[in-house]
Amino acid sequence: MRRCLIIVVLVALVAVAAPSFADEGMWLLGQIPELEPTLKAMGMQLSPKEIWDPTTNTGLASATPWLGGCSSSFVSPDGLIITNHHCAFGAIQMNSTPEHDYITDGFLAATRAEELPYKAGRVTVLKGYEDVTRAVTSTLKSGMEPEARARAIDLREKQLVAECEKDGLRCRVAEMFGGGKYDLFRQLELRDVRLVYAPPRSIGEYGGEVDNWVWPRHTGDYSFLRAYVGPDGRPADYSPDNVPFRPDRWLAIAKEPLKDGDFAFILGYPGKTMRYRIAAAVAEDTAFYYPERIKLLKQLIAIFEEESKRGKAVEIKLASQLKGFYNSVKNNAGMLEGLTTSDLAGRRHAEEAKLTTWIEGDPARKATYGGVLPAMEKVLATRNATRQRDFLLGWMPIPRSSSLLAAAAIIERWSFEKTKPDLERKTGYQARDERTLRQRLVSMQRNLDLPSERKVLACLLERATRLPAGQRITAVDDAMAATGLTGEQAITALLDKLYAGTKLADEKTRLAMFGMDHKAVLATGDTMIAFAAALRRDAAAEERVTEKYDGEMVTLAPRHIEALAAWKKALLYPDANSTLRLTYGSVQGYSPRDAVRYLPFTTLQGVIEKNTGVEPFNCPPRLLEAAKLGIATFGRYVNPQLHDVPANFLTTQDITGGNSGSPVMNGRGELVGLAFDGNYEAIDSDFQFNPPLSRTITVDIRYVLWCMDFVDNAHALMREIGMEPQNK
Amino acid sequence: MRRCLIIVVLVALVAVAAPSFADEGMWLLGQIPELEPTLKAMGMQLSPKEIWDPTTNTGLASATPWLGGCSSSFVSPDGLIITNHHCAFGAIQMNSTPEHDYITDGFLAATRAEELPYKAGRVTVLKGYEDVTRAVTSTLKSGMEPEARARAIDLREKQLVAECEKDGLRCRVAEMFGGGKYDLFRQLELRDVRLVYAPPRSIGEYGGEVDNWVWPRHTGDYSFLRAYVGPDGRPADYSPDNVPFRPDRWLAIAKEPLKDGDFAFILGYPGKTMRYRIAAAVAEDTAFYYPERIKLLKQLIAIFEEESKRGKAVEIKLASQLKGFYNSVKNNAGMLEGLTTSDLAGRRHAEEAKLTTWIEGDPARKATYGGVLPAMEKVLATRNATRQRDFLLGWMPIPRSSSLLAAAAIIERWSFEKTKPDLERKTGYQARDERTLRQRLVSMQRNLDLPSERKVLACLLERATRLPAGQRITAVDDAMAATGLTGEQAITALLDKLYAGTKLADEKTRLAMFGMDHKAVLATGDTMIAFAAALRRDAAAEERVTEKYDGEMVTLAPRHIEALAAWKKALLYPDANSTLRLTYGSVQGYSPRDAVRYLPFTTLQGVIEKNTGVEPFNCPPRLLEAAKLGIATFGRYVNPQLHDVPANFLTTQDITGGNSGSPVMNGRGELVGLAFDGNYEAIDSDFQFNPPLSRTITVDIRYVLWCMDFVDNAHALMREIGMEPQNK
Repeated sequence: MRRCLIIVVLVALVAVAAPSFADEGMWLLGQIPELEPTLKAMGMQLSPKEIWDPTTNTGLASATPWLGGCSSSFVSPDGLIITNHHCAFGAIQMNSTPEHDYITDGFLAATRAEELPYKAGRVTVLKGYEDVTRAVTSTLKSGMEPEARARAIDLREKQLVAECEKDGLRCRVAEMFGGGKYDLFRQLELRDVRLVYAPPRSIGEYGGEVDNWVWPRHTGDYSFLRAYVGPDGRPADYSPDNVPFRPDRWLAIAKEPLKDGDFAFILGYPGKTMRYRIAAAVAEDTAFYYPERIKLLKQLIAIFEEESKRGKAVEIKLASQLKGFYNSVKNNAGMLEGLTTSDLAGRRHAEEAKLTTWIEGDPARKATYGGVLPAMEKVLATRNATRQRDFLLGWMPIPRSSSLLAAAAIIERWSFEKTKPDLERKTGYQARDERTLRQRLVSMQRNLDLPSERKVLACLLERATRLPAGQRITAVDDAMAATGLTGEQAITALLDKLYAGTKLADEKTRLAMFGMDHKAVLATGDTMIAFAAALRRDAAAEERVTEKYDGEMVTLAPRHIEALAAWKKALLYPDANSTLRLTYGSVQGYSPRDAVRYLPFTTLQGVIEKNTGVEPFNCPPRLLEAAKLGIATFGRYVNPQLHDVPANFLTTQDITGGNSGSPVMNGRGELVGLAFDGNYEAIDSDFQFNPPLSRTITVDIRYVLWCMDFVDNAHALMREIGMEPQNK
Repeated sequence: MRRCLIIVVLVALVAVAAPSFADEGMWLLGQIPELEPTLKAMGMQLSPKEIWDPTTNTGLASATPWLGGCSSSFVSPDGLIITNHHCAFGAIQMNSTPEHDYITDGFLAATRAEELPYKAGRVTVLKGYEDVTRAVTSTLKSGMEPEARARAIDLREKQLVAECEKDGLRCRVAEMFGGGKYDLFRQLELRDVRLVYAPPRSIGEYGGEVDNWVWPRHTGDYSFLRAYVGPDGRPADYSPDNVPFRPDRWLAIAKEPLKDGDFAFILGYPGKTMRYRIAAAVAEDTAFYYPERIKLLKQLIAIFEEESKRGKAVEIKLASQLKGFYNSVKNNAGMLEGLTTSDLAGRRHAEEAKLTTWIEGDPARKATYGGVLPAMEKVLATRNATRQRDFLLGWMPIPRSSSLLAAAAIIERWSFEKTKPDLERKTGYQARDERTLRQRLVSMQRNLDLPSERKVLACLLERATRLPAGQRITAVDDAMAATGLTGEQAITALLDKLYAGTKLADEKTRLAMFGMDHKAVLATGDTMIAFAAALRRDAAAEERVTEKYDGEMVTLAPRHIEALAAWKKALLYPDANSTLRLTYGSVQGYSPRDAVRYLPFTTLQGVIEKNTGVEPFNCPPRLLEAAKLGIATFGRYVNPQLHDVPANFLTTQDITGGNSGSPVMNGRGELVGLAFDGNYEAIDSDFQFNPPLSRTITVDIRYVLWCMDFVDNAHALMREIGMEPQNK
């Protein structure tokens, strides 16, 4: 059993090695005590237990809930939440209509009764976590087939979650270090989330796609939500009778100004990093994965842009998905550029050669780690044999988009999985997931636009016709053949048939079918359901590939990371996986290229300078008017060194997607801003952190307050967060 | 007679007022004594007389010749000249063939005998200058018609030039302050210029159009020429028997490093500024002139780009003109953007309103300056009535390009003007111009490409067909009508006729016709000649408009500038007009926008970082190799503060087009670099200097020396300029 070893090694290393770079690392709450000397030296005034006390399961970390893809923080005892505008975008969009265009105009609830429900929203509050490595791995036997090993781990994880959720909590087992460690997280999931306040898009998304990932930045990327619970104080679905949630902890707003060089830290939920990915995998990402994704995303963007022109209502329906596609394509293009120009695969290959030499240099090391890298390369190569098919299958139910095929896939799969015992069902299709799945079948109605989803499906089907032999999707081939036509005509005929024979565009039909058993679902003869069922059989092949891959890797990856840790004598943190992490650093500019220095603060004046009056640089007129009042009027929002209100700032923390909306705090744990982006120059830091270049971009809380105070008159809300307005 | 007054006022102001901004101003040599205290305080170690002594007509200024559109300096007693690569581009291009592509590969003459002739080249050395205001204006009478006034000034200027040139010199009367002052310049024009050394384009033009006008910059924009004279020491046409020119003065290369904040000054020949242009004229430039120019330039670029694809030989023929078009379009687009976003017309209008209030506030001032501005506006409006026709006529003989129509225009006009007494001929067509015109008829052969010039002419003709009534070009209308066709067919027919009936593509024919009298020229029946003669009659209308405009303005503009000087109590410098000027300042970065700071030095490392291997960022492999030797090897080329070889640097001097190649000198008058560009953020500084943003971009002499020493092994040349190579 190798799995336990790595923890021992890692814990041992903590005692002797400082982190290799002061500001790299997305640290588990349990690692904070080991970081204490560094944190204290940099300016942290809180003790590790004030951040998280594993004995009492309390601390600052309970004030920083997960929003599902985003991070956030409580800022009042009445469940008020601050996060990014782009994290609340779904809530804003859901409530917008051509008549009430809150995306464009912003929204401010005058009273709590006017706060707008966001039924798809979830606020997940940490209640505790523990190491369950032994529990997860105890049933594993050496010599197990990879598939059996993967299934055994999956089963144990589900059992642990089921036991944990008996207390009415939501739980999750998270794999760390590629399977070297497993942590069980206990969380309170609040289901009644409401939109309280969002500035106009021209503040919250100022700079739009042009400035996305770019410094200098001037975006007021903030919004306020509120979590509600039932009158009994327990999580509940939306009801007008619900009452504001009372969190254990909430953040105070910083009153002392933040300045260049100051210490700051972040608690948030980074989604995914690939810091320990081997050279062969990086090469695969560079050569296939990112280029393929970029191509597809550009096709989808073109379709959605074109369809958005059909009218304001369609534009609103597609806005959120389009925004996501744009963000992804810019990220992926930057990532690819970064991987290519820095030749990360080549450099990592060279590093692996050195690691191998080090391993070979000692018989004990050779016995422990020898052959791990070649084995990983072999496993990877096997999985990549069907990469084109698997890539396309991953997009077939059109993730992130409302679509009838996605609805059919949910309904058909749900009824199919229900035929099995709960613990044997596919993750995401257990009894605990029923509510979420039903909610998706409801909320998709809001964004359903058949003409655009049909074009997307046509695009995916066309791609399927070009798959190489051995990687064909049988469901597509059969359905196309059944039309008796070929090429574009076959696609059109298939789409005609699929859309003519389905009733899934009707919300009630979807919900009715979601309750039926598998045979009954198939017996409806719904064409989309039949196609989804056929696709599920193709997906099963892909799932077997993944299961085998996971079962192999889980014995290899932890040993690889263990070897790296021993070789580098460095304290390591696990790759991001949407669990709560602490990252720390300081306010610092950077030099993007020769003879250019980026300063760490932008200013209100800079916001005005960028204003062209044309989207995405169209400041609201009331902001332009307010700015003219002059800095003498702006009191404590002014940074005296800048002689202006700071708009955004840079820090050296190590974040990634999922950290959006994270509170940035000073040494006292007070809120100084909201992280909302990384910089383009370090967009590939998911693969390798680059200390001179990697920066977190944060909206300064002083700009948030200035906008609330002088632009949007959100004075009641300011008082709720303990800040007296100045513009009275 | 108002004209003398302004000088008195200006001289009086010198005594009481410091320049409004330390680094603004393109100062006449005669103004240097007034600047002395400021210059000395900033770090100038030379006395005004060391720069230029009007008594002896000697000084540093005699070491900085004009290249006709560019500036330069002597750097050895043997007539060796350093200037920009882009200033020597004509010489490089003229000598390049597909077999010997000196543009791509660079050129280094191993011995003086191998230096390559540049027959179109001219080196103009200052021998003296004096104020001739009284002489020019003495024949003017009050109440003269504007046309008569303009002709009288023109005649006096020609008389003064003719008298001056009796000594074998080339002379020029330059108008300062819109006609408030006239200076006569005595110059030695050297006609045997040779190419000595040019680095490859991938150094001399590194960054190409992408980086043009851009900071941070990494261009090695330098080349060496040599001026030759006859064995008797007098200016002579090219001959292998000629000997190197021995200048009175040449510049020493600085041996002490230049650093941030250091004083530096420039002697050079700025071409044209519009600092005193009135609001109405700026508005006209913004609304009509620049948009129109940009549109046309883009059409020409598209034509030349397309034609360049026909092969290497065509590409070389068109390279120089294409480069010029690109430079112009980027400049003009930036200018237009600057004028528009800064609303210069609006701001100048507001300033004029204040000036008017000031004038109206005092009866004496009102008597002197009242009504000047409205009068200028009226004169301008009259000229603008035919602006579309006049704009197009300005392009009809296709300036800057080799074309048969340009040749026809020269030949026909020359024979026409020859029928008049010399002093009454149009400027540029006097006996003194014969050699230059003949040389143009010879050198055009090198770049003659009939398919592309035909397309350019088609483009201009098409534009002529769209001119409004009252602004038609009769020559075009008549020629089109004569084809009996309309629209595109008429243009094609006309072009077919023009090219079928001309022999001007033959160099010998052109030169033979250049000797004929007017009747004989017309009698040849050459179709291009006939078309040029017809166009000359249209041009005469445009010339009358200009004559009237000039005659009016010459009484108004000096009074306007005089009013400005009196109102602002500022020492003023005249607008640039290709006469020798001094501008001073210091090494300084700037902040182009919020949160961004540009440092004043780029580095060799920055050159390498920009290298993509693809034009225009394709460092020569030998440069990449040399850079690897490491800074420890590079000795005195290294700036210790940068820990690297400085590539380019920024200073605050006030320059414009024409200053390219200007020596940038330290306080001891030693060469520290060659000015080669301005920055995009201040591209509209021709209209209004902007101290926080306006910067001169200079190639550091240490980068020049490093390239000579470590990349191109130009060791003999280094020794000639007094620098011992390090890479031996």
